[in-house]
Amino acid sequence: MKNSIGIEIVDEILRGYFPNSNDKVAQAMQYSLFSGGKRIRPMLLLATAKAVGGKINENAKIMAAALEFIHTYSLIHDDLPCMDNDDVRRGKRSCHMQFGEAAAVLAGDALLNLAVETLFKGSLSNKGYAKACQFMLKMSGINGMVRGQSLDLFTETKTVEEANDVALHKTGDLIRAALVCGALCAGANDEETEILDQVAIKLGICYQAVDDMLDSNKCEKSFLDVMSERALKDYTLKLTDEIKALIAKLPYDMTFIENIVEQNLIRTK
Amino acid sequence: MKNSIGIEIVDEILRGYFPNSNDKVAQAMQYSLFSGGKRIRPMLLLATAKAVGGKINENAKIMAAALEFIHTYSLIHDDLPCMDNDDVRRGKRSCHMQFGEAAAVLAGDALLNLAVETLFKGSLSNKGYAKACQFMLKMSGINGMVRGQSLDLFTETKTVEEANDVALHKTGDLIRAALVCGALCAGANDEETEILDQVAIKLGICYQAVDDMLDSNKCEKSFLDVMSERALKDYTLKLTDEIKALIAKLPYDMTFIENIVEQNLIRTK
Repeated sequence: MKNSIGIEIVDEILRGYFPNSNDKVAQAMQYSLFSGGKRIRPMLLLATAKAVGGKINENAKIMAAALEFIHTYSLIHDDLPCMDNDDVRRGKRSCHMQFGEAAAVLAGDALLNLAVETLFKGSLSNKGYAKACQFMLKMSGINGMVRGQSLDLFTETKTVEEANDVALHKTGDLIRAALVCGALCAGANDEETEILDQVAIKLGICYQAVDDMLDSNKCEKSFLDVMSERALKDYTLKLTDEIKALIAKLPYDMTFIENIVEQNLIRTK
Repeated sequence: MKNSIGIEIVDEILRGYFPNSNDKVAQAMQYSLFSGGKRIRPMLLLATAKAVGGKINENAKIMAAALEFIHTYSLIHDDLPCMDNDDVRRGKRSCHMQFGEAAAVLAGDALLNLAVETLFKGSLSNKGYAKACQFMLKMSGINGMVRGQSLDLFTETKTVEEANDVALHKTGDLIRAALVCGALCAGANDEETEILDQVAIKLGICYQAVDDMLDSNKCEKSFLDVMSERALKDYTLKLTDEIKALIAKLPYDMTFIENIVEQNLIRTK
């Protein structure tokens, strides 16, 4: 593996943990997995592990793969007609448009299953790793990402706090998984892990806020339901400053993550 | 916990691992989980663990809960309009009829996630338990139960071998998880575990064959596509005899499992 953390490295890791199968469902999984994702979550995980531990160990690679499998399953299911009903994802036909709804449901299910099969290949007897696995699944489940989707679909958002709560779960929880699991795989202590979790919470909300600005015509819940575009822009700047202040408390080189934080803001220009 | 293995015991275990949440998705999960299931899979797991180890340890309870969570998620997704399109399950409205399709998709996703969160609460440093977790997820994934659903939906079944293959994955793989994981939790050796796996494979196929006889009008793939009802009846008797011969090789009291094997046949009378 090369020293830098880029999309190619993540794709190489994902291919290493993808099962051999010619099945239609496996084709649908593969189609969605290798269709131009930005790989933000696994890259954040690997970068955090490297910043904290100096190198990327196998446990961190496993967790990065599992996290992208989980993210991809959530996109496939979110795009279904009964959910957000999106025909296009990353400029290509969404999974159910290409393979049909039944195959898309099964491909999502199988990717979540694959994520966990992959996690079980790590060092389960290592306490930091076991804790990281538990954290990742908490962040993806009924009180994590699924809660975000549920809030998005079934509740009203009338206040900034409620918009924050949706963004925190819908987008923030898998970003939390990235930073916290990366830290735990590399042996970070409780205090450092807690700071990284706070960074992730703010980054997740900030990322969703920028998405909302870029996609102000969409029908889903948005920060723009509860504040003006100007106020939202100020909010993302405030969050970004808070993130930088938190990062400054850590004894590690966090350049990679600071760049992602900066690039997020640049998206609005 | 009482000494006998019944539905009440399984329900008590399931409630112990069910998360606190008032969310609509959590309500949908709970609705499907406690809607009159026969609990065959968790009971087989607990009975196997007890037969092999003399008692039911916490790891076996965790696995029994996880297996029923996985089974329930698969039923919710199978009933969706894009899959088998069933309005009724166990005499009640199916999950999507009661809560809508979006909540049903998310409830299934969250139950699979919950299954694995539960598995991570067991003794991960115990090699038998870790192996059992890996086996359960293999049996539920793209080369296990999901493969069964995929074969059912997307391939033609023209031979007995093909019908066996569908039944093996669709029904057999979670039965395999029940017996093998129960055995591994209780410390069975490789030879015993292999015999129990063979029992489970035959029981799974036999169970699906009886289902096909009871439900001969359904549109899904069936053994009755490739053999007569008389031939299928003989096939179930042959499988049952083979199961009994395998069980006789084991040094354990397998009465509970023999009863389930007998009760399966009785269903056709």
